[in-house]
Amino acid sequence: MRIPVQPMAEKKRLGALGRQLAAASLVSAALLSPAIQADQSGLDMEINKHGEKTLEFDWPILHVGTGEYPAGPTGVTVFHFQRKVLAAVDVSGGAPGTVNAEFLKLGYDLPELDSVVFSGGSWYGLETATAVATALKDDGIRDGYAFGENPNIALSVGSIVYDFGSRRLNEIYPDKRLAQAAFRAAEPGWFPQGAAGAGRMTLSGVFFGCNAHSGQGGAFRQLGDLKVAVFTVVNSLGVITDREGNTVACYPGENWPEDLRTADLMQDFPSSRAEGWAGVSADDRNKNHNTTVSLVVVNQKLPHAQLERLAKQVHASMSRGIQPFATQFDGDVLYAVSTGELEATADDAMSSADLGAVASEVMWDAILSSVPEQPQVVPAAEDVAVSAKDLRRYSGDYRFSRFVTLRVERRGDRLFARSIGERDTYSIGRDKAVELQPVSPTRFTVPGRFPLVLDFSREDQLLANPGKWQQLGSKI
Amino acid sequence: MRIPVQPMAEKKRLGALGRQLAAASLVSAALLSPAIQADQSGLDMEINKHGEKTLEFDWPILHVGTGEYPAGPTGVTVFHFQRKVLAAVDVSGGAPGTVNAEFLKLGYDLPELDSVVFSGGSWYGLETATAVATALKDDGIRDGYAFGENPNIALSVGSIVYDFGSRRLNEIYPDKRLAQAAFRAAEPGWFPQGAAGAGRMTLSGVFFGCNAHSGQGGAFRQLGDLKVAVFTVVNSLGVITDREGNTVACYPGENWPEDLRTADLMQDFPSSRAEGWAGVSADDRNKNHNTTVSLVVVNQKLPHAQLERLAKQVHASMSRGIQPFATQFDGDVLYAVSTGELEATADDAMSSADLGAVASEVMWDAILSSVPEQPQVVPAAEDVAVSAKDLRRYSGDYRFSRFVTLRVERRGDRLFARSIGERDTYSIGRDKAVELQPVSPTRFTVPGRFPLVLDFSREDQLLANPGKWQQLGSKI
Amino acid sequence: MRIPVQPMAEKKRLGALGRQLAAASLVSAALLSPAIQADQSGLDMEINKHGEKTLEFDWPILHVGTGEYPAGPTGVTVFHFQRKVLAAVDVSGGAPGTVNAEFLKLGYDLPELDSVVFSGGSWYGLETATAVATALKDDGIRDGYAFGENPNIALSVGSIVYDFGSRRLNEIYPDKRLAQAAFRAAEPGWFPQGAAGAGRMTLSGVFFGCNAHSGQGGAFRQLGDLKVAVFTVVNSLGVITDREGNTVACYPGENWPEDLRTADLMQDFPSSRAEGWAGVSADDRNKNHNTTVSLVVVNQKLPHAQLERLAKQVHASMSRGIQPFATQFDGDVLYAVSTGELEATADDAMSSADLGAVASEVMWDAILSSVPEQPQVVPAAEDVAVSAKDLRRYSGDYRFSRFVTLRVERRGDRLFARSIGERDTYSIGRDKAVELQPVSPTRFTVPGRFPLVLDFSREDQLLANPGKWQQLGSKI
Amino acid sequence: MRIPVQPMAEKKRLGALGRQLAAASLVSAALLSPAIQADQSGLDMEINKHGEKTLEFDWPILHVGTGEYPAGPTGVTVFHFQRKVLAAVDVSGGAPGTVNAEFLKLGYDLPELDSVVFSGGSWYGLETATAVATALKDDGIRDGYAFGENPNIALSVGSIVYDFGSRRLNEIYPDKRLAQAAFRAAEPGWFPQGAAGAGRMTLSGVFFGCNAHSGQGGAFRQLGDLKVAVFTVVNSLGVITDREGNTVACYPGENWPEDLRTADLMQDFPSSRAEGWAGVSADDRNKNHNTTVSLVVVNQKLPHAQLERLAKQVHASMSRGIQPFATQFDGDVLYAVSTGELEATADDAMSSADLGAVASEVMWDAILSSVPEQPQVVPAAEDVAVSAKDLRRYSGDYRFSRFVTLRVERRGDRLFARSIGERDTYSIGRDKAVELQPVSPTRFTVPGRFPLVLDFSREDQLLANPGKWQQLGSKI
Repeated sequence: MRIPVQPMAEKKRLGALGRQLAAASLVSAALLSPAIQADQSGLDMEINKHGEKTLEFDWPILHVGTGEYPAGPTGVTVFHFQRKVLAAVDVSGGAPGTVNAEFLKLGYDLPELDSVVFSGGSWYGLETATAVATALKDDGIRDGYAFGENPNIALSVGSIVYDFGSRRLNEIYPDKRLAQAAFRAAEPGWFPQGAAGAGRMTLSGVFFGCNAHSGQGGAFRQLGDLKVAVFTVVNSLGVITDREGNTVACYPGENWPEDLRTADLMQDFPSSRAEGWAGVSADDRNKNHNTTVSLVVVNQKLPHAQLERLAKQVHASMSRGIQPFATQFDGDVLYAVSTGELEATADDAMSSADLGAVASEVMWDAILSSVPEQPQVVPAAEDVAVSAKDLRRYSGDYRFSRFVTLRVERRGDRLFARSIGERDTYSIGRDKAVELQPVSPTRFTVPGRFPLVLDFSREDQLLANPGKWQQLGSKI
Repeated sequence: MRIPVQPMAEKKRLGALGRQLAAASLVSAALLSPAIQADQSGLDMEINKHGEKTLEFDWPILHVGTGEYPAGPTGVTVFHFQRKVLAAVDVSGGAPGTVNAEFLKLGYDLPELDSVVFSGGSWYGLETATAVATALKDDGIRDGYAFGENPNIALSVGSIVYDFGSRRLNEIYPDKRLAQAAFRAAEPGWFPQGAAGAGRMTLSGVFFGCNAHSGQGGAFRQLGDLKVAVFTVVNSLGVITDREGNTVACYPGENWPEDLRTADLMQDFPSSRAEGWAGVSADDRNKNHNTTVSLVVVNQKLPHAQLERLAKQVHASMSRGIQPFATQFDGDVLYAVSTGELEATADDAMSSADLGAVASEVMWDAILSSVPEQPQVVPAAEDVAVSAKDLRRYSGDYRFSRFVTLRVERRGDRLFARSIGERDTYSIGRDKAVELQPVSPTRFTVPGRFPLVLDFSREDQLLANPGKWQQLGSKI
Repeated sequence: MRIPVQPMAEKKRLGALGRQLAAASLVSAALLSPAIQADQSGLDMEINKHGEKTLEFDWPILHVGTGEYPAGPTGVTVFHFQRKVLAAVDVSGGAPGTVNAEFLKLGYDLPELDSVVFSGGSWYGLETATAVATALKDDGIRDGYAFGENPNIALSVGSIVYDFGSRRLNEIYPDKRLAQAAFRAAEPGWFPQGAAGAGRMTLSGVFFGCNAHSGQGGAFRQLGDLKVAVFTVVNSLGVITDREGNTVACYPGENWPEDLRTADLMQDFPSSRAEGWAGVSADDRNKNHNTTVSLVVVNQKLPHAQLERLAKQVHASMSRGIQPFATQFDGDVLYAVSTGELEATADDAMSSADLGAVASEVMWDAILSSVPEQPQVVPAAEDVAVSAKDLRRYSGDYRFSRFVTLRVERRGDRLFARSIGERDTYSIGRDKAVELQPVSPTRFTVPGRFPLVLDFSREDQLLANPGKWQQLGSKI
Repeated sequence: MRIPVQPMAEKKRLGALGRQLAAASLVSAALLSPAIQADQSGLDMEINKHGEKTLEFDWPILHVGTGEYPAGPTGVTVFHFQRKVLAAVDVSGGAPGTVNAEFLKLGYDLPELDSVVFSGGSWYGLETATAVATALKDDGIRDGYAFGENPNIALSVGSIVYDFGSRRLNEIYPDKRLAQAAFRAAEPGWFPQGAAGAGRMTLSGVFFGCNAHSGQGGAFRQLGDLKVAVFTVVNSLGVITDREGNTVACYPGENWPEDLRTADLMQDFPSSRAEGWAGVSADDRNKNHNTTVSLVVVNQKLPHAQLERLAKQVHASMSRGIQPFATQFDGDVLYAVSTGELEATADDAMSSADLGAVASEVMWDAILSSVPEQPQVVPAAEDVAVSAKDLRRYSGDYRFSRFVTLRVERRGDRLFARSIGERDTYSIGRDKAVELQPVSPTRFTVPGRFPLVLDFSREDQLLANPGKWQQLGSKI
């Protein structure tokens, strides 16, 4: 669903529309103008767009809404509880972004939380967490004045992932407009997995140069009356690993074995990283740029101290599915919520440790569900001939964003490219031009560890890596 | 300075204009329409409005901007450092609102902080802290992409005070628009004291029912090359106390001594609170609604661990100037910043404990400077006659906000009032009408511990407590 | 090495003697006298007794000493650094015991730590951590008075594991005497693995009823000039798991598969626990009685903030080798130490994340090395005949400790036993007598999930589970 | 009461004896022998010795015992609750020593605490906290085995103050023996104030060079059924200040005003410290050597989160009575205990903030009660003649401890002294001999900011500063 600018009056329709899958979206013209490069108010939004798969679950208290700027791409995921719930937080990474985490650490047994918001955009994305709070007020759900016993100030917490850097060619971030649209479109019973919402442009395995696309994962389990839902946005230094020990997604280094086992990568480290260690650009390294942010929801009533224990246990357990985990360069934060719908004395209620064991497995499922299908490295085709006219037509300077412009030049019957802005264009650097090798008459590639496809099929536009994570440049 | 809607292109002018004191501002019409009651986009803003007094100091690295919605009133204060600085945080209250506090607790000796934002509006006001971060990006100051060594993601932290409740008749809060205008107007060398910025509508002494107006305070001290600046927004359960032990501002209970000493109030507690204990409405009590948020800035380079010690020491020292302090119902947060301009080995450099002793005294000065002049309780005048025509004209239902409407009725030659909305109108409750006693032909009062003046001099409008903290109702 | 009572003058000899393996030790007579049941001053000590295997490593700055009370059995492990080192701590379990952890959390970049002490005995075992500090003073190593720049107060930190409960029949704990003897015997270059030191009487897999013996593990890795040593005392709710996903040690429930995989136990939980769920007695359940305490030592200089990150990362990584981990009922604590011998700018120095990845693998090796050889369940022998005279001789009341006395009775040609003290004797309860089935003329068993052998070969004594974890009862 | 060596069998008698005031105690011979200088096992103990005054209060659940080594002097104070109570902790100083503080931070609403132990001896004194735990086990009060619902492991927490340094001439510390004797002698209803227990050798005002003797303070208040008891061991950088703002105890610098006001000292800092800034020796400065440790006990049931709030509020409030407070060089720790005897719904129950206000005032009373009577600076007498024979007799080398030996020499009819050990003897340094000026035929002084009296009236012994804080040297 593409939403040019979202008028509030239309919000009722969003629910119905939200489930429709959107076609590939166009970059807004607004972004391409240098004068207003950072004005995001004209960007197209996609709200409640489905990902690879959709988790469905029955839990009316929990509404989920997502908002995406396909031009980034980047996005936000909003969890809105239909009544105030008890929450705890565990921060284990070395580069967190948080809103209102301090309050959750005070240990009150008082349900106060309205929403949890995950977002791309690094620290800028925190605007989405505060925007959901103010939307709750502006919409009259939390008026800001307390009548009777119940506090009526919205408590919205949130955390972010770093989805800038060399993975994309602009610095668009999820903002207030996008977050409030996602909040207002939130619906029960669904959660889009893969490259969706806050997981729209995340990576995994950066530690080993894998740089596989990841996304957001979700899983749900019900044991009698006990419900456990887990959501995680994986943007990790670590590689995603299944229960058999396999590395689930990775663009392998040269000479790496076909069947990659995480235990081998880890045990052989640092030598396992030596080969083909080119995934992370010098600009990106050591910049605190990874993060996995997670949410565990249980319906069992728990004292706050035990909810904290649950958060700790489940958070630590993620070290199995993501290796390494909780490093200085991750900003890992986990929120744990008890909706309190199931009494602690109920038959199906559990100790925090048992509940933690269950939730840790649901978490592992969630991590695995976050992985989208990966684009493949496309080999150059031997026998493609591109006409001189086309080569001329493809030539030119393509601007992707304020810092990224790619110069494409014809040299005889070959095409070369060089970055002339302040930043590289993926593996195409600024020092010298590299040859673009044809894959088809309109598509070219630069061989390397990672897929890189440049598509010239649109008039005066260059589509880098067409598909889910595409970037659009305009000839200038 | 009144700013209808602030276009970005005008921001250069703001600096010059900002220092001019504004006339009393009008409530925007937008607020009075029920349909869009919570849409704040049309509210008048006041940017860099001066308070009671203005602290001037010489420290180019630190820019201060304030934004106010006079219709609240409420406001925001933005501290913008001209380069990244090292920061620590100490949370001592039981009801804090924070953005990015977790990051500051990790102990890195790395200057990362760009701005500290204080705001009214309770948790909703946190939108101002994230808005300053995104303004830093949108304006191209922190691009979001790291070139070379320096990280270039803006780190903005912030905390809020609860300035809702019975003190005012609406729930307007400082938002993104207001914060970004204040940020863009920030200037070096000044800080408005009293009822300004985030301290626009704060109270002190709520614990003893004093409910005196407070505000934001600032103080500066230079010892050789060593600089210490302290800023605090006082919205405290505790009473403000000077170095001689006097209670600085309080609407006293009945039979209280003229020369009120805080030590007496505290030692005699709970009996000291028994008399005239009417300051806090039942709705407001036990709602975690006070907070003092503070910022200490030193130019001396300090390791993060020592900056944390400084924060702790200065924060604890505030228990002298505000009594009680750091309670469950305060959200007290203190940020400590080292700009690193003075080397730790410089002649004027100090140990953290010595620096803390100095800063604690500067803090006490700052607390004292936060107190604005208090409105006086105006006695009813014996000999004022109001014409029947005027009484008829004054009669009617005045709407202040979604929840507050006051019904004014003429009964013979007297005027009565009763709240007919969901909330009380100050001491005028919803159960039965109270008599409005004339002070002048256009002004009336209701006797009590606190000043209450109703001004009917405007056509079809009722001005409650005209002056700095006035509230405007419109006849419906 | 058995040490009746350790005179200080003999401490020099301990080093040499320490490496000799001791013969099975006798329970001190002192323990058997009710009047002085809790006086441990006469207990035999074993100092620097080797375990299953011994880790050898070259790192002169780090001395290790162990002390054991075989009568418990229980023990203590002392790590003594030969100069003050920098330390950080991560507490992730819900039932920790700590000495001086708060100081380590203040973030000073100052080497202050002298020793880390791990101990059995639950909170009582903390006496060992303070005892090492006072030994450092009493021996004149840290005088308590600061001459010159260096502080000269010993900083000893420590944590404990719960090795009481149904696993043994008394509550002997490591105390000051034992700890100071271990401290004074500490030597470089060695670390005993398995049922040694603080790991003398630990269990793993309690969560699934596995109740396998565990112990203390250690591993060392050197990469160029970079050294990483890891030590861990595993007493875990979780099952120990190898890199292929196998459960390393477990007394399986009925009908459990031969090749037990932890992923299956975890994914099938809670049903995986249903069968044969008899490992934990009702008395023991929900009593916060597990704990894994760990120490990571690196020689690279790290700022304190990064050492904390390292601690977090490695601690979380343990969730792979121990599943579940960091629950409410574990008291997991990890100390991280930087000796500072390798400059951060050295060729072999690493980022904290890289170092954490290496250390996490060394930790996994350490966990695996903690597992001792398990006693087997011995079936009753069909054809053993025990003479009536022997049966009569075996009959009687055997006292193991204040709370445990076992009544052995002959009934015809069979032998029965019942606990008549306040506590059960392993699976032999207090409600009714169970038959003791002969294994040999002097040994009997009670069939069940866990090995239980009663040995009557000593005059007037009953040896329960003869071997490494034996318990001695005396006829009364 | 002097106790040569305390056999356990006599512990019953201690209660009765404990209240008797003891005569000035002798230094044990053991201390004077170099060979066993650090063996404290022969030191005389004083148990439950009264201080300046005794606080009496009615609260049977709380027993208090003290132990002192007069040869130090130094001591320990044990608070033993007669059933498990709920506890929280607040660490605000930069140099804390703690046992089991981490557990108290987990937020469980479970009464677990048995005892709080305060001690001198810096980190070495933590042995007293663990010793009380093991005494609870050894005496069969907490067996270590859990029968039924209740955990039966003793939880003892504790903190220490630094009472080493130039204030005394040896490094004796409270140890296991002393703590267990104090624990076993604990009685209800009393608390010795001043130079007693853990406050036996504490100072205040070190920040301004005041170096006044302080001690331990206690106060109690009952409001209806609500009880609040507060205890504090003041060993503070800050000066003790009363509610009128007066500095309560200080050896003033030259030219300081008679009526010293703390506000003046603080506001004029650093210049207020310039004059007569000789109180702290170079050895002592910047050595993290101060600490105020405190305990607040309420009988009202509070959730743990609110007990933490109470701890924070009261701890911060101490900044009024001790200025400065909570610095990097203090190790301030406060424990808060709720005995749970008064239901939260009782008529006299209070919110945590109200309770905090009450307890903060009781704390201020406690702080003030900690101040013992100060020794006066004794002027040299003009007309005292000491015989040559006496001068000869006084001459010699007097050994106070391993590091302190004073050489007294007759030069004509005058007496000179110089320190020949590794440490100074108070103001008598090692560089050159200073004249001892006669006060009486047997007593001499060295003029200065602080009292210094040397008494030669005992044969072959030198008593430095005879009286409460005396130090004994023996001729060698």
